[in-house]
Amino acid sequence: MTVTLSATLAANEDIERRRRAGERVLHLAFGEAGLPVHPALRDRLAAASARNGYGPVAGAPDLREAAAGYWHRRGLPTDPDLVVCGPGSKSLLYGLLLAIGGDVVLPMPSWVSYAAQADLVGSRPILVPVPRGEGGVPDPGQVATAVRRARADGRTVSSLLVTLPDNPTGRMASPELIARLVDVARELDLIVISDEIYRDLLHDGSLPYTSPADLAPERTVITTGLSKSLALGGWRIGAARLPEGAYDLRARLLAVASEIWSAPAAPVQEAAAYAFTEPRELAERVARSRVLHGTVARAVHRCFEEIGAETPAPQGGFYLYPDLGHLRLGGSAELTKILLDDHGIGVLPGHAFGDDPAAARVRVAVSLLYGETPEQRLTALTSPDPLGLPWISASLDHLATGLKDLSRGRREPGR
Amino acid sequence: MTVTLSATLAANEDIERRRRAGERVLHLAFGEAGLPVHPALRDRLAAASARNGYGPVAGAPDLREAAAGYWHRRGLPTDPDLVVCGPGSKSLLYGLLLAIGGDVVLPMPSWVSYAAQADLVGSRPILVPVPRGEGGVPDPGQVATAVRRARADGRTVSSLLVTLPDNPTGRMASPELIARLVDVARELDLIVISDEIYRDLLHDGSLPYTSPADLAPERTVITTGLSKSLALGGWRIGAARLPEGAYDLRARLLAVASEIWSAPAAPVQEAAAYAFTEPRELAERVARSRVLHGTVARAVHRCFEEIGAETPAPQGGFYLYPDLGHLRLGGSAELTKILLDDHGIGVLPGHAFGDDPAAARVRVAVSLLYGETPEQRLTALTSPDPLGLPWISASLDHLATGLKDLSRGRREPGR
Repeated sequence: MTVTLSATLAANEDIERRRRAGERVLHLAFGEAGLPVHPALRDRLAAASARNGYGPVAGAPDLREAAAGYWHRRGLPTDPDLVVCGPGSKSLLYGLLLAIGGDVVLPMPSWVSYAAQADLVGSRPILVPVPRGEGGVPDPGQVATAVRRARADGRTVSSLLVTLPDNPTGRMASPELIARLVDVARELDLIVISDEIYRDLLHDGSLPYTSPADLAPERTVITTGLSKSLALGGWRIGAARLPEGAYDLRARLLAVASEIWSAPAAPVQEAAAYAFTEPRELAERVARSRVLHGTVARAVHRCFEEIGAETPAPQGGFYLYPDLGHLRLGGSAELTKILLDDHGIGVLPGHAFGDDPAAARVRVAVSLLYGETPEQRLTALTSPDPLGLPWISASLDHLATGLKDLSRGRREPGR
Repeated sequence: MTVTLSATLAANEDIERRRRAGERVLHLAFGEAGLPVHPALRDRLAAASARNGYGPVAGAPDLREAAAGYWHRRGLPTDPDLVVCGPGSKSLLYGLLLAIGGDVVLPMPSWVSYAAQADLVGSRPILVPVPRGEGGVPDPGQVATAVRRARADGRTVSSLLVTLPDNPTGRMASPELIARLVDVARELDLIVISDEIYRDLLHDGSLPYTSPADLAPERTVITTGLSKSLALGGWRIGAARLPEGAYDLRARLLAVASEIWSAPAAPVQEAAAYAFTEPRELAERVARSRVLHGTVARAVHRCFEEIGAETPAPQGGFYLYPDLGHLRLGGSAELTKILLDDHGIGVLPGHAFGDDPAAARVRVAVSLLYGETPEQRLTALTSPDPLGLPWISASLDHLATGLKDLSRGRREPGR
């Protein structure tokens, strides 16, 4: 087991240090939603401030019922007894890996914490590439081969993980790919852990959404949370929907949860119970956020396209995953360093997401462009033309100029 | 690795089920402080409801500085950079076991979660008995023998854990015992993890308090939280004070924390920062709580003494650990069952705390006797004579009668 501070945390600390020192750095490295808390949620938290009991490990009954309703409205009837809440979907993912045991198949690239968590619980991740143009779902054929090989070597492989839509690529895997992967999971008897924390941030709300739970309810765990859709990252609240009849997995997950985190903070649970009922005011907030993320992500996409970087069009969340290999400046670590040192553009290297270090792919998060203050962010959220706001437009100019300089082999003047 | 729901959680669920079904059951099984949130903390939480960023993994700077001040006022100058906050001291203890690695020495008996956590991180706990009349600190001579034997067998033993004052015994280990244990820890090069979550609930505030950190600051980690002293269990907030210069351990703990829980809930952090400054209104609340816990614990102690049960006098927190062996009714599991089934008295068996299952020791928590409603609990807290309040007096009568019936071999009528 390796216990080291993640490369992404270190990169973020470096960017923040530079900004505090007065350096002009675009912070495109952090996956925070970058938007304020809706006042209705602030009110609910305040109203729940008397709640101080430990409460059930799985979360309060009203919270679990509200989360069940959230999934029911998405075509997934849900037993509240098979909902387990935790202090963030990250905690739940960790608890699930520990409760399920065995090795886990991960998409390559995929969110940095999956592999780190697997390492902490003593699971050896099996990284399988994502097909070109897709995101968050490993190639089904290669999964079958890799799992059979690992099992032939005596390893226990119990689960595979997908991200829909994806971080880092910003892509939503196609229904066909998901269906093929689910077939493989069934054939190999793997639990599918589907991280759907960005589900409500698909930019085009009319796109069909396929969850592995639609196709294989008997083996799919869904995790979600309110960190992205409602910008409650700092409140630490997530929910897991366990497979049909998985009471044994539930007992194991609760055993783990009760020894590590007990339950999410009680006042937060009450606000989250309200959020998961999706009242109109919050549904509108999510819809506006989705539009803002999409608008800015597309603008950033254009900046990368302009210099000829192969960049899959972003479809959900607030990420892009450009490939700057055509510039022949080195692998993802070198490129990340050049972008930061010479152009004041802070991104994360693709290798932190398990990608080939020789590839010049970097992850770009756009959500910290919305403003430096809560007022600016709220303005961005409600503006009919967020790209025209001076602070967003200045950041996009910084990015466009920096990328052009990069592609011409020039540094930003003064750096 | 065993992943099963803890016996205590199951016991608590059983008691609550019986109460919901209308059965008259005294709930003496749960370690919740049983008191309301102070209004000043409710106000701080509400005022912090706009805080939604992830923030630093170790906790916000103001929280870490406040916690450092808390320790400074207790004679332990503290570098805020060596303070790590988490969603409960339970999470921090888990993170520490994972970050430190190796096997851990635990007192026998000790809090149920220590051994369960060790099991989850793949550490094999070495249980060493606590000297008679003491609590929370294993016998130093036996620790030395057990660690040397384990090392001779090729095991890595890295740490030992103490609870001051203790759960389940309610005792505060003597300064002499702590000094002898610290000598052994130094000789064997063990990290001492000192769980001091009940420190401010020592019933006699004039008793001297020795932390292993006073004697061995270079090797002692202290954990604490606000769940007990300020009844914020459901808010999930704890803090760890790492040894002098332990920046490497800090980095490993943060790496673990960032992959499992990220940080405590941001609004809770702000309220906790206020609490750790110990303003007069909260210091008074803690002082009142301490008096109430002590008063009720002593009354419960008398009930057990009256039937001749050997029961160490409670000194801190809200627990007692009577030995009912003189009744010759079986081990702790049998006795716990008889108390619940025949007398409506819900306690936890000593074996859940790692004690000898053949011993008839049970853990009694008194803090759920203060009332069924927030109003009753607040009244108990401010009453000059809490034992005279009808609901507390009725509970004590139930206990006294139940214990007398037990000792005479009679059941409660109607059971």
